[in-house]
Amino acid sequence: MKYDVIIIGGGAAGLGAALYSARYNLKTLIIAKEFGGTGNIAHKVDNWIGEPGISGMDLMNKFIKHLDEYKVPKIEEEVTKISKMSDGSFSVKADKTYHGKTIIYALGMKHRELGIPGEKEFAGKGVHYCYTCDGPIYAKKTIAVIGGGDAAGLGSLFLSEYGKQVYTLVRKTFMRAEPITQDQMKANKKIKIMFENEAIEFYGEKTLQGIKLKNGRKLEVDAAFIEIGHIPLNNLAKGVKVKINSHGFIPVDNTQKTNIKGFCAAGDITTRHTLKQFITSAAEGSVAAETIWSYLKNNKW
Amino acid sequence: MKYDVIIIGGGAAGLGAALYSARYNLKTLIIAKEFGGTGNIAHKVDNWIGEPGISGMDLMNKFIKHLDEYKVPKIEEEVTKISKMSDGSFSVKADKTYHGKTIIYALGMKHRELGIPGEKEFAGKGVHYCYTCDGPIYAKKTIAVIGGGDAAGLGSLFLSEYGKQVYTLVRKTFMRAEPITQDQMKANKKIKIMFENEAIEFYGEKTLQGIKLKNGRKLEVDAAFIEIGHIPLNNLAKGVKVKINSHGFIPVDNTQKTNIKGFCAAGDITTRHTLKQFITSAAEGSVAAETIWSYLKNNKW
Repeated sequence: MKYDVIIIGGGAAGLGAALYSARYNLKTLIIAKEFGGTGNIAHKVDNWIGEPGISGMDLMNKFIKHLDEYKVPKIEEEVTKISKMSDGSFSVKADKTYHGKTIIYALGMKHRELGIPGEKEFAGKGVHYCYTCDGPIYAKKTIAVIGGGDAAGLGSLFLSEYGKQVYTLVRKTFMRAEPITQDQMKANKKIKIMFENEAIEFYGEKTLQGIKLKNGRKLEVDAAFIEIGHIPLNNLAKGVKVKINSHGFIPVDNTQKTNIKGFCAAGDITTRHTLKQFITSAAEGSVAAETIWSYLKNNKW
Repeated sequence: MKYDVIIIGGGAAGLGAALYSARYNLKTLIIAKEFGGTGNIAHKVDNWIGEPGISGMDLMNKFIKHLDEYKVPKIEEEVTKISKMSDGSFSVKADKTYHGKTIIYALGMKHRELGIPGEKEFAGKGVHYCYTCDGPIYAKKTIAVIGGGDAAGLGSLFLSEYGKQVYTLVRKTFMRAEPITQDQMKANKKIKIMFENEAIEFYGEKTLQGIKLKNGRKLEVDAAFIEIGHIPLNNLAKGVKVKINSHGFIPVDNTQKTNIKGFCAAGDITTRHTLKQFITSAAEGSVAAETIWSYLKNNKW
């Protein structure tokens, strides 16, 4: 049994690719560690047009439900290896080995760590990477958010709904978060943005008690949420010699083709969009599916 | 009163651009002849992930409703001219003249005509360009669809729900419509795909009676729907020296920038995507908004 295309990754890019692959009548398999992917942990998504204020989980469930109408088989397992076969097709190892003529690689990114003392020690005991997952534990507590981008901004707003005080620690003199998010933070009395403040150590006893800052001060907090960006999950692609750029992203052309014949990439993992959003990921997935369809029909890469 | 950005066009690209512009806190105006644009006339949209089988009109209304939450002013008028001012900003003439620091041009395309005898004469009297608008008139009638692409395929399926017989006239030996559409056409007893058949004249008396074909035959029909593609609406862009390619599309880079400073283009009008869909248009609009925001902040093009 050989699929026309195996899609790896179950976020907006992978699901978008699967929908279009099914519409193109390709024999499609989608494999993901978790369907919905990092989209699931978005507290409130207000940038998917037509769905004001929907939660990430609800939006992803709408995507999955739509896909299910096409009866595309979904395997919820982690892929551990992709290999290229002598005939140019691919084998994909997960719970078992699957064969596909082509691949759409849509694994996205994972949370970046700070790499400072105490981070591993207090992970899950005050140090967290997913504010929507772990934020509600800290009702009426003092919380730090570390980072200056959209995730740090949105995380601070989210956590202010639970905690009594939120400190947003920003290393630079400004935040990169969307201006509307920054406005909302400034208007929120529970949030204090602390510019030019860098965390250098987490301390505590059994659980986190505070953060040592580079300027010598200490900040007593019950929890710290690290929101400093993401790392592209490119490892499996490296295994089949897909080109990766110096930032870890996969260069693709305007049709989502990588340097490897039959291997497309889509979503956050690619160089196509610096604006990494559900909408751009879903678009990339759709384009990748058309590219695969066209490749299988014409055998041209 | 000068807007940060004036968005011209009210389809998926324009609405997507407006949502993101609003989220970026840009003073935004959107002007369109008709909000929803050509999206409104799609009978059934099944490729907007999360909304299986929604109508084009309903989907566009969801987009507009979302945008309205941001209170972006919408002007429903046709833009007749864009001019570049000496300070680098733009004036946009519609019901009156509006001024914007930048433009996002998202006018899309209009229906292409065949240019054969009888086409103008019987337009609206049997010859039509919008199957969802005019199809239901022809209940239990014999209908021709002219074209070989997605629109011709989907149009044939749609019209088969009303007419007693649908002839799909395809000039070539194959159709370019999505395979799933072609399968559905083949399985539909009311539809007959006639390959290598080219319409050369419409005939009739007061209303259409039939089509003369290149092979000398005549096909008696009550209606003919011309679905042979679209023409990019580039005229207003030409007026401010935006570069247009030989097919009439606007070349843009990966950030939707055109050759003109402060002038982005998004959606069907651009060269960015050959896969022209709601999802790719909305993505382009979102990216254009981020580009404009970044340009206004840094004054770099």
